[in-house]
Amino acid sequence: MYGLIGRMVAVAGRREELLDILLSQISDMPGCRSYVIARDPAHEDGIWISEVWDSAESHKASLALPAVQATITKARPLIAGFDNRHETEPLGGVGL
Amino acid sequence: MYGLIGRMVAVAGRREELLDILLSQISDMPGCRSYVIARDPAHEDGIWISEVWDSAESHKASLALPAVQATITKARPLIAGFDNRHETEPLGGVGL
Repeated sequence: MYGLIGRMVAVAGRREELLDILLSQISDMPGCRSYVIARDPAHEDGIWISEVWDSAESHKASLALPAVQATITKARPLIAGFDNRHETEPLGGVGL
Repeated sequence: MYGLIGRMVAVAGRREELLDILLSQISDMPGCRSYVIARDPAHEDGIWISEVWDSAESHKASLALPAVQATITKARPLIAGFDNRHETEPLGGVGL
């Protein structure tokens, strides 16, 4: 499995709008086992995203899906940046 | 929902043993929606753990479960520490 943990930082004051876009995107993404979108209670513009995929390839392929492309286009103006990005190798657990 | 993202650091050279203990623990934990255990490819002793619970209370209550207590007892000698600990407010996604 292939995992990503990272924090997206919204343009100041636009986090809720950005969350609405991200949460409305949730669709069938082949190879996606887990995709958690969370508010960061310690940073008023922070959004934590944790992902588990069958493979790095299935993650990469998802970025070309029309629904994901549409979300990226809508979300981009509201994203100030990313930090705390970590690739992981998920091994097991609950909810995979 | 209540979430935690954090990195556990194994005693040098003991990560695989620690992973075996953590992965064998996976049991029914009331209120647990997601619990992902992952190797950190960027740190030879690092283990990423991402959790989603119904509430902070269900997370706290899990620590008193006999199976979880037994795992903590077995794992403790192999844990050097924790870092990158973040509480989150999960809102939605895949696999919850």
